[in-house]
Amino acid sequence: MTGQIIDGKNIAAEVRGEIREQITKIQGENPAFKALLAIIQVSDRKDSLTYVRMKLKAAEEVGIATEYLHFSESTTQEEVLQSIDRLNEDPEVNGIIIQLPLPKGFDEDLFTSRVKPEKDVDGFGNYNIGELNKRNGNPYFLPCTPKGIIELLKRSNVNISGTKSLVIGRSDIVGSPIAALLKAEDSTVTIAHSKTKDIQQCFKDVGIVVVAIGRPEFVKGEWFKDASPDCVVIDVGTNFVDDSTKKVGFRYVGDVEFHESIKHVKLITPVPGGVGPMTVAMLLQNTLLSAQRVEKLNGKLRPFK
Amino acid sequence: MTGQIIDGKNIAAEVRGEIREQITKIQGENPAFKALLAIIQVSDRKDSLTYVRMKLKAAEEVGIATEYLHFSESTTQEEVLQSIDRLNEDPEVNGIIIQLPLPKGFDEDLFTSRVKPEKDVDGFGNYNIGELNKRNGNPYFLPCTPKGIIELLKRSNVNISGTKSLVIGRSDIVGSPIAALLKAEDSTVTIAHSKTKDIQQCFKDVGIVVVAIGRPEFVKGEWFKDASPDCVVIDVGTNFVDDSTKKVGFRYVGDVEFHESIKHVKLITPVPGGVGPMTVAMLLQNTLLSAQRVEKLNGKLRPFK
Ligand SMILES: NC(=O)C1=CN([C@@H]2O[C@H](COP(=O)(O)OP(=O)(O)OC[C@H]3O[C@@H](n4cnc5c(N)ncnc54)[C@H](OP(=O)(O)O)[C@@H]3O)[C@@H](O)[C@H]2O)C=CC1
Ligand SMILES: NC(=O)C1=CN([C@@H]2O[C@H](COP(=O)(O)OP(=O)(O)OC[C@H]3O[C@@H](n4cnc5c(N)ncnc54)[C@H](OP(=O)(O)O)[C@@H]3O)[C@@H](O)[C@H]2O)C=CC1
Repeated sequence: MTGQIIDGKNIAAEVRGEIREQITKIQGENPAFKALLAIIQVSDRKDSLTYVRMKLKAAEEVGIATEYLHFSESTTQEEVLQSIDRLNEDPEVNGIIIQLPLPKGFDEDLFTSRVKPEKDVDGFGNYNIGELNKRNGNPYFLPCTPKGIIELLKRSNVNISGTKSLVIGRSDIVGSPIAALLKAEDSTVTIAHSKTKDIQQCFKDVGIVVVAIGRPEFVKGEWFKDASPDCVVIDVGTNFVDDSTKKVGFRYVGDVEFHESIKHVKLITPVPGGVGPMTVAMLLQNTLLSAQRVEKLNGKLRPFK
Repeated sequence: MTGQIIDGKNIAAEVRGEIREQITKIQGENPAFKALLAIIQVSDRKDSLTYVRMKLKAAEEVGIATEYLHFSESTTQEEVLQSIDRLNEDPEVNGIIIQLPLPKGFDEDLFTSRVKPEKDVDGFGNYNIGELNKRNGNPYFLPCTPKGIIELLKRSNVNISGTKSLVIGRSDIVGSPIAALLKAEDSTVTIAHSKTKDIQQCFKDVGIVVVAIGRPEFVKGEWFKDASPDCVVIDVGTNFVDDSTKKVGFRYVGDVEFHESIKHVKLITPVPGGVGPMTVAMLLQNTLLSAQRVEKLNGKLRPFK
């Protein structure tokens, strides 16, 4: 048996196509309609620059306007906070994200929580985390990577309710919120982390595995031998490993040993081309949602389940 | 082998004794020191009346002042909200709780989230839930029942880090927050609920089991046969079952089949006399903490881990 790939690149393109269509349709009815995403960056980190550039390009392609505030690392916290306040008050701005990590000495929580909940399209602020973790919460936005994972599962016709799932990693941006979403979708979730003993044992009979730890090929193919034969694997890991055969000198590798694992499972996301593109697509979707709310609904997002 | 009982009544009395001592000590240094808990009730439900009376009495015994606002069910939401606002602004008031459930037609979330985070000694508001669910969050208060469970485990010398734990139930007041706390204490947590298939299988090798579902003796003793021999069971369930042999006509029963389970586990909480008294003790502890903050720290609670 060999499993199938979940083509995140393709599915994300589909989602972006839908967003573009929707924007065109709304603008047909109301030419003044505009969705605007503001991105704040406080560093010259190469990876951050790449991620921001990807987001700006993707936004542009679907017809979402952008405002890019690029501060140098010598900027004071106060200056950046003032920009957030200004964007919070600007009725033209629908979404505000702060590219992490921030420079040393910056209190990230201070910044993510400064963004108004109704513009917090990354879903990292206290309000949206609180609502996400309530049984019938009303978050304005779900965080993009976990939201993208649920979307990948649904568009691949994976039935989540009643499954046993395993999430490896408990970060605020991936592990913990995807565990909350899987739970809300009626999966029975186990959350493992670096203090978990005998992690391999957690794979027994499991139907969905999400790995977000940042350790190249940490999860071995043979660990899936005891998993459900219908097991679906979502590999969030994005690790750079040196590779002199590549022009750029490196390649991307996931947290899962892809070639061995695919032999034992039903579906698996590749790295790159799995979760990554969906994260960006969900950011665009959240921004459009925010603009539509201002436009029409003027209310909160319906509960996420 | 027969397991031991975790005597929650005793441990709670110990905690209350510590609170009383602390208050006496602080008042020795500053005679004006006062901790005040406000309780809002909007119903004449018998069980709510009982719970409120217990809380008022316990507060009084440790030297915490109380303000009890008892509204009739015909009160408007607006009236109750105005009282919360008044208590929020009153510098004398250190803790505010709203006895749940509220009457039909009342939006509970509206009320719990109206309480200022720094007076939300039940820990049910959006702010405190958000912080509880962040990796390095800074909640002002942890919700009382989950906090009491961790305290029971620690005072019984149960090592939480590295264990496998199972939480059955995913409510906002017990299941979900105790799962978050066990995770923060480095346990590998599985959260089961009514959509979980083959729940018995989840007991395999498990070291800590918390049951909060409200189904009398739902968890059978034999389910623990595959659990760790050192398994610790926390039974949160508080079910009234008819019992004509009792003067009052009923008795309390937990969610766990106590007499069969104790044969297979190391430690187990009884019902009554397990988690219940700890919940009230933690409410008092949170109120004292709040008063101490106003008095001295004037800051936030240190991170809970
Ligand atoms: N494709 C995308 O869109 C995105 C990809 N990513 C990628 O996902 C990965 C994870 O990111 P992020 O969540 O931010 O990472 P963090 O570093 O914040 O968290 C890593 C988590 O993995 C756990 N962990 C680390 N080592 C082990 C181990 N040996 N066994 C079990 N658990 C372990 C840690 O446990 P503990 O808590 O005990 O320390 C921690 O909870 C990274 O590769 C990142 O690049 C992230 C976001 C988006
Ligand atoms: N001692 C104390 O201080 C306290 C005691 N309690 C007691 O704890 C119990 C639970 O309270 P609470 O959390 O408020 O209850 P809720 O009714 O809010 O939640 C019950 C949870 O149990 C789950 N559940 C119900 N039936 C089953 C089943 N057959 N198998 C597996 N899971 C099931 C539900 O699943 P789903 O989500 O799928 O519906 C739900 O998540 C009650 O008896 C209550 O009286 C509560 C608070 C404090």
